[in-house]
Amino acid sequence: MVGTGPGSIDHITPQAVNAIAAADIVVGYKTYLDLIPQLLEGKEVLSSQMMQEVDRCRKAVELADTGKKVALICGGDPGIYAMAGLIYEVVMENAPKVKVEIIPGLAALNSCAARLGAPLMHDFAAISLSDLLTPMALIEKRLDAAAMADFVLVIYNPKSKKRTSQLLKAQEIALKYRKADTPVGIVTAATRENETIVLTTLGELDKAEVGMQSTVIIGNSTTFTWQGVMITPRGYHNKYKIGE
Amino acid sequence: MVGTGPGSIDHITPQAVNAIAAADIVVGYKTYLDLIPQLLEGKEVLSSQMMQEVDRCRKAVELADTGKKVALICGGDPGIYAMAGLIYEVVMENAPKVKVEIIPGLAALNSCAARLGAPLMHDFAAISLSDLLTPMALIEKRLDAAAMADFVLVIYNPKSKKRTSQLLKAQEIALKYRKADTPVGIVTAATRENETIVLTTLGELDKAEVGMQSTVIIGNSTTFTWQGVMITPRGYHNKYKIGE
Repeated sequence: MVGTGPGSIDHITPQAVNAIAAADIVVGYKTYLDLIPQLLEGKEVLSSQMMQEVDRCRKAVELADTGKKVALICGGDPGIYAMAGLIYEVVMENAPKVKVEIIPGLAALNSCAARLGAPLMHDFAAISLSDLLTPMALIEKRLDAAAMADFVLVIYNPKSKKRTSQLLKAQEIALKYRKADTPVGIVTAATRENETIVLTTLGELDKAEVGMQSTVIIGNSTTFTWQGVMITPRGYHNKYKIGE
Repeated sequence: MVGTGPGSIDHITPQAVNAIAAADIVVGYKTYLDLIPQLLEGKEVLSSQMMQEVDRCRKAVELADTGKKVALICGGDPGIYAMAGLIYEVVMENAPKVKVEIIPGLAALNSCAARLGAPLMHDFAAISLSDLLTPMALIEKRLDAAAMADFVLVIYNPKSKKRTSQLLKAQEIALKYRKADTPVGIVTAATRENETIVLTTLGELDKAEVGMQSTVIIGNSTTFTWQGVMITPRGYHNKYKIGE
């Protein structure tokens, strides 16, 4: 299971590159494979445009079970809200002798935080707003708990075409505990050609453009902005005297 | 600000490698620089064994302010509990015209999760137990809120030589909401020569060896172990039928 980070080969570790090079066959979603054509030259590739994640995992495991070395490509970090768990579950049920190795990549939270400045210098909570596999009541409970305890909030899957109310709910919950001028950063398609970076505030979040490829970071009570970047200071006491 | 990930050059992205190559001078803590000798050949290097982080940042900013391109090296991901915020604060106060770029790397949470299997498939909270810059009352509040709302817990700075009681407190708080057999993974010095990976349980956490280089991941109510790995399933309903 190979994490390829946010996009181009500029962000893929040598460990991931070497795993792809060593594989007998590369399996992956076409969108991700198209970002790394240089690594696929001369390789046997099983590119799936339509296959669902589960089918892709099952296919990869099936191939591995015949003795092939399979590189299953996963954008971002397979270990964060992604396919690492699924591959273990498929292996457990279907081919328990297949060996799995997870090769990490830069997740959305790493890339988006870097593009926004330094929002994750202190405790943060990552919360997905997708209610496909998680009851909305639990999502709301987590938003509330994390907002109440002053975690920076990293919001995955903030919105889809059909699903737009969850982000409004998140905004409403955060506003129970945080000021309307709390900085919020929105990064869409981080590091890709169509990347957009928006700095807004919690009070204005409902007016910002947020899409399926966006990650939203809501600052904690100490987060501030400076020259277009978002900074969460590390300490609550500012003990590390600067500029003396 | 260049993130070099967990250790060797095997985990450094081309973007980071290129930034080091393009720099006039490389500044960093000796321990991290010693892991990437290949990248430093022929470079001007300012290696600091004893300089504190703030002094390192100030030195780097001072050099950049004279017009030099400086690569300030940061192990892991500078954007996650690390030096990205500090560099902005030093620039703000001392040399506001210096341009900063944050180049992300694999953070401890990426590397440790990958070594443990798939613990971070669902919502998680990252919490540092260091009370140097954060009041312990706030740390406890966050532990309580995150444990209550069934976040997977990623514990940074779990222990130091002098500081051993915080992890016991975290265990106690988590046990208010989670069963004693909840899986806990402890990764120390991920991917390095002296790496250790321990799978234990929440009830036994106080007996496990945890050090300054460790990251501790406490599973949520659905996390389970299988053949030495720790897996948090993605969904609460298991909608994505496997093996059918």
